[in-house]
Amino acid sequence: MTDAPDPLVIFTPSGRRGRFPAGTPVLTAARQLGVDLDSVCGGRGICSRCQITPSFGEFSKHGVVSRPEALSEWNKVEQRYKDKRGLIDGRRLGCQATIQGDVVIDVPPESQVHRQIVRKRAEARDIVLDPAVRLHFVEVVEPDMHQPSGDLERLRDALAQQWGVEGATASLGLLKRLQKTLREGEWKATVAVHTPAEGAAPRILEVWPGLREKPVWGAAIDLGSTTIACHLADLHTGEVRASGGVMNPQIRFGEDLMSRVSYSMMNPGGAEEMTLEVRRALAALLAETAQEAGAEPADILETVIVCNPVMHHLVLGVDPVELGWAPFALATSDAVSCSAAELSLNVHPDAQVYLLPCIAGHVGADAAAVALSESPQTSDDLVLIVDVGTNAEIQLGDKRRVLACSSPTGPAFEGAQISSGQRAAPGAVERVRIDPETKEPRFRVIGQEAWSDEAEFDASRITGICGSGIIEVIAEMRLAGIIDEDGVIGSAEQTGSARCVADGRTHAYVLHDGREDGGPLVSVTQNDVRAIQLAKAALTAGAQLLMDRMEVETVDRVVLAGAFGAHISPLHALVLGMIPDCAVDKVTSAGNAAGTGARIALLNRGARREIEQVVRRIEKIETAIEPRFQEHFVGAMAIPHKSAPYPELGKVATLPAVSYGGSGGGGGDAGGRRRRRRG
Amino acid sequence: MTDAPDPLVIFTPSGRRGRFPAGTPVLTAARQLGVDLDSVCGGRGICSRCQITPSFGEFSKHGVVSRPEALSEWNKVEQRYKDKRGLIDGRRLGCQATIQGDVVIDVPPESQVHRQIVRKRAEARDIVLDPAVRLHFVEVVEPDMHQPSGDLERLRDALAQQWGVEGATASLGLLKRLQKTLREGEWKATVAVHTPAEGAAPRILEVWPGLREKPVWGAAIDLGSTTIACHLADLHTGEVRASGGVMNPQIRFGEDLMSRVSYSMMNPGGAEEMTLEVRRALAALLAETAQEAGAEPADILETVIVCNPVMHHLVLGVDPVELGWAPFALATSDAVSCSAAELSLNVHPDAQVYLLPCIAGHVGADAAAVALSESPQTSDDLVLIVDVGTNAEIQLGDKRRVLACSSPTGPAFEGAQISSGQRAAPGAVERVRIDPETKEPRFRVIGQEAWSDEAEFDASRITGICGSGIIEVIAEMRLAGIIDEDGVIGSAEQTGSARCVADGRTHAYVLHDGREDGGPLVSVTQNDVRAIQLAKAALTAGAQLLMDRMEVETVDRVVLAGAFGAHISPLHALVLGMIPDCAVDKVTSAGNAAGTGARIALLNRGARREIEQVVRRIEKIETAIEPRFQEHFVGAMAIPHKSAPYPELGKVATLPAVSYGGSGGGGGDAGGRRRRRRG
Repeated sequence: MTDAPDPLVIFTPSGRRGRFPAGTPVLTAARQLGVDLDSVCGGRGICSRCQITPSFGEFSKHGVVSRPEALSEWNKVEQRYKDKRGLIDGRRLGCQATIQGDVVIDVPPESQVHRQIVRKRAEARDIVLDPAVRLHFVEVVEPDMHQPSGDLERLRDALAQQWGVEGATASLGLLKRLQKTLREGEWKATVAVHTPAEGAAPRILEVWPGLREKPVWGAAIDLGSTTIACHLADLHTGEVRASGGVMNPQIRFGEDLMSRVSYSMMNPGGAEEMTLEVRRALAALLAETAQEAGAEPADILETVIVCNPVMHHLVLGVDPVELGWAPFALATSDAVSCSAAELSLNVHPDAQVYLLPCIAGHVGADAAAVALSESPQTSDDLVLIVDVGTNAEIQLGDKRRVLACSSPTGPAFEGAQISSGQRAAPGAVERVRIDPETKEPRFRVIGQEAWSDEAEFDASRITGICGSGIIEVIAEMRLAGIIDEDGVIGSAEQTGSARCVADGRTHAYVLHDGREDGGPLVSVTQNDVRAIQLAKAALTAGAQLLMDRMEVETVDRVVLAGAFGAHISPLHALVLGMIPDCAVDKVTSAGNAAGTGARIALLNRGARREIEQVVRRIEKIETAIEPRFQEHFVGAMAIPHKSAPYPELGKVATLPAVSYGGSGGGGGDAGGRRRRRRG
Repeated sequence: MTDAPDPLVIFTPSGRRGRFPAGTPVLTAARQLGVDLDSVCGGRGICSRCQITPSFGEFSKHGVVSRPEALSEWNKVEQRYKDKRGLIDGRRLGCQATIQGDVVIDVPPESQVHRQIVRKRAEARDIVLDPAVRLHFVEVVEPDMHQPSGDLERLRDALAQQWGVEGATASLGLLKRLQKTLREGEWKATVAVHTPAEGAAPRILEVWPGLREKPVWGAAIDLGSTTIACHLADLHTGEVRASGGVMNPQIRFGEDLMSRVSYSMMNPGGAEEMTLEVRRALAALLAETAQEAGAEPADILETVIVCNPVMHHLVLGVDPVELGWAPFALATSDAVSCSAAELSLNVHPDAQVYLLPCIAGHVGADAAAVALSESPQTSDDLVLIVDVGTNAEIQLGDKRRVLACSSPTGPAFEGAQISSGQRAAPGAVERVRIDPETKEPRFRVIGQEAWSDEAEFDASRITGICGSGIIEVIAEMRLAGIIDEDGVIGSAEQTGSARCVADGRTHAYVLHDGREDGGPLVSVTQNDVRAIQLAKAALTAGAQLLMDRMEVETVDRVVLAGAFGAHISPLHALVLGMIPDCAVDKVTSAGNAAGTGARIALLNRGARREIEQVVRRIEKIETAIEPRFQEHFVGAMAIPHKSAPYPELGKVATLPAVSYGGSGGGGGDAGGRRRRRRG
């Protein structure tokens, strides 16, 4: 009887296998084999995180015949859990079911600690959940005056003995609450432990009495010059449960970053003032997002922030003045970790705030986050990544080499400095088509499904043009021959369209005139075209600079990132020459890649180490001192004649070779604008 | 010419020796040989910390003949330094003088980093200076936009390359100041680096432009229930340059610790209130002490605090309520490190505050500090260490084993609860002798050299009796037969002294009656004797308990510690039976040993690791639950008849076998008092 081998257990999907004496709990077997099976309570049958699905029957693949009696019988603990919370049929609790015979056991994704979070885009890699904060249920030895160790020391011992978490430290704040909590939970407690990296010193963030069943949260924040976005993720599932956004209140100190740096230079205490404002906005946003998720702000135990260098310095309380002049020296370029309390964020005071590293004085943690999300450093083909915001951060590279720069596009792409421009909000024109024959437009506004030439369209709800709309309308104007290669809008006479009206010494194209009904005049003026020309020239010049340095003339694919990038029509971007010529299907949008990068860093601590190393290898090009940038910039102002097949338009699109004369083009402005640098 | 060996250099006092090519700077040779030769500037000839004294002549001991030409000639840098700051004749700067021939070089103590600080007492070990904070002068690479690393990263690189300090971190506070400081010093800076232990992660505490020549400071604080003492040491020399003391403002919440714990139990927010008060007092004391030393509070870069467990919890902001009842659970027993800002201390905000570990719920970091200073764990003979304060912490041990307990003596030994009692201040009676024949006293008061029977004595300056005075007077009363074995004061009739006056139903002994001149009546009442009997019984019972546990009946020596212990007459302590019988010359005073322990931990970071380990090995005895404590306590109330030779008194002292009857003795009180526990 003793010669029969112990039962064989095979775990799927890992394929790990081993023999265990009959009576071994499944959880114990999983742990010994290093199978990724979750448990917060450590096998006490109270957290139900270790759910498993035994597979019975004959498994040719695994060569194991497992019978229902291969696991111990369904027990009371499981029944109680099922009655109270529900348990999918066929599921067992890994800490209750014991091994009795050969068996194949599947660990469903939600029982895996390091589960994969699948991203929607085909080209994006999945995220493996491995947050810095983990919960552990412990039973703490009660105090004994013959062995007078402190409560904290006995808690640390419990973490070490029950979870292998060695040498955990705690803040004074935790120490203040500790004694009461341990007694309230009758020496049973759930401990949130922060371990920034595998093998790093663990830190006890919080202790709750008994078993904590509510989730703990992490916040991924994309702190832009104009808007701040926050995503709140359940740190156990990785799922984003609430998102929110606010305007960056620093806008009142200057729309673009350099205005804010100037404000700091000109006003003593100006930097502190801006720091205070942005921290207040972050705290308010976190509170609001927490409320949406039904969470307490104090249950947000981890925060990741991505932002450009100026915002990076301002949120940390560092005067950004050195970023205002050459050599654009960062106070710190490495990743920064600090406590949420230091930034007055409205989360757990001991929560760690992690800011991704900055790539250079003009290429920030937001660009690092884009690199983390889009991974140019692992790309087989040469990819150009353009993060279009108030500034454009541009990365070009593949697995051999990655270059990065920042280009001062200004806020025109976001609808600012445009006569009818507005933020992307209901009422904004976002899609435009102009008939090349009649020069008549049809368009769509945010908040309505119908196009403007459809019956159900409500023209009274038009308010202006947003960033993607302005790009489309100007590209369409060029396709329709309303503007020439230099960007000059033709007169009604020249274009044959009554929509081209005189506007001082230049002309404007009227997209919609609602003035009779008390609505707005939505038109594209010569200055609007100039603003977009300047912005696209800066973008193109930056990309061109990187291509020069890489010694390439074309790229294999283009990724448009940034919240705005998500809405740009690749085709119209190509028409305008915003991005290098490339097959339309090779231009994709990564959405808010910086925000995604923040979320990756939030959910996978290994990703932090990864991006810290990647950033060191990225070669930085400083556009401000590259003589060729100026050259490329001037050269990129025009929207030259070209003939290219754009099947997506339903026809062969041709940029007509027209010229309406006039030298109101932006070439002359460029120098002046360049001196101001990036916005 | 190449066959001649390189010059031989011998350093004293280390005896390290080696051969170096002619032209090698002495500092370089010293570093390569691991000779302890200081330098802050790293050999740039500006800090003058590397002064050395070459010895010329024939040295039979070292077998080296060194001639004046064995070192390079006196150079301009040395002359400039000598002109500006002075340099002892014969001294050279180790970074300027180069080796030219065989030479013996002495490193004077002030040029050694790890110099020894010699303690005055013969039995005390010396302190080797090895503070956690060190200064390093660095030259930082200027920013370069082609290599866009942050200022902090380049500072870290400088520390690593120029000083071998790897991976230094910095606070946000430092980051805010960094850019300005580096530019102000033109990329030269002095950096204060905190490294809590050899090999631990270094932290940049502060950066000053250029070479900092002013000292940086460390504070050693003995935070007692009644008084707070602070010593400010120059962290480079180890020298204490200023000391100060204040009353603990928490006295208004209760004179003894248990009253303060009760205050916290009874008053919501009471603990916070006491925390605030003690932190305020510490901040004020630090400011005052800094001023005395001519230092800026922000230049105090390291702080060590020793205190009892209740004060330990209160200063950390932890409610001490659990220390008020069994099992007297500490929130934390290990050493605590936190930032000065967290405790609102008036020092550098990033300065680390180190609190020594607590031994048990009633034996605190102050007792640990005494163990650090007096080192019972390395003693060859069995030593009893009594730290006499409001509580008595008692340690008994030798190199094999150390036991510790706390005993609730109450504040009587400090002059509190004594009718004529007062703090040790000018006017307080501190020495007393009573003629056994006439029963007439002679005494001395603090602030006067003369005894009361001497002509120059000014009786108008008598104000009361301090702690050491009350012990002496009661011991003398017993020696003179004024009180009997039970502690009863005899009447004038029984004692034959008119100084024994009726006081209700008991008697009092009048030491001094200044009432006619508007002065005080200074007398010893029956209650005073009872209070001292209770206190000494508690002390004796605690010591006895440890001796029982150690299974010994005598000790080899006794060390009296505590500010008050410094003034107790060993002889009178023996007469009263405060300490076990022992040869008088084996009773020594360690002065404020807790304060000394704090200073040791401040100046030598290795001592911290040492005491952390020692404390874990000390066996704790909880007097509150030891039935024998009660027994010993009751048995120790009496001051029994004994005849012992005390040559120090100039005669053979005998405690007469007298009895004045009356059962007003403290035996009955003891239980009631015990329930209140320690004061």
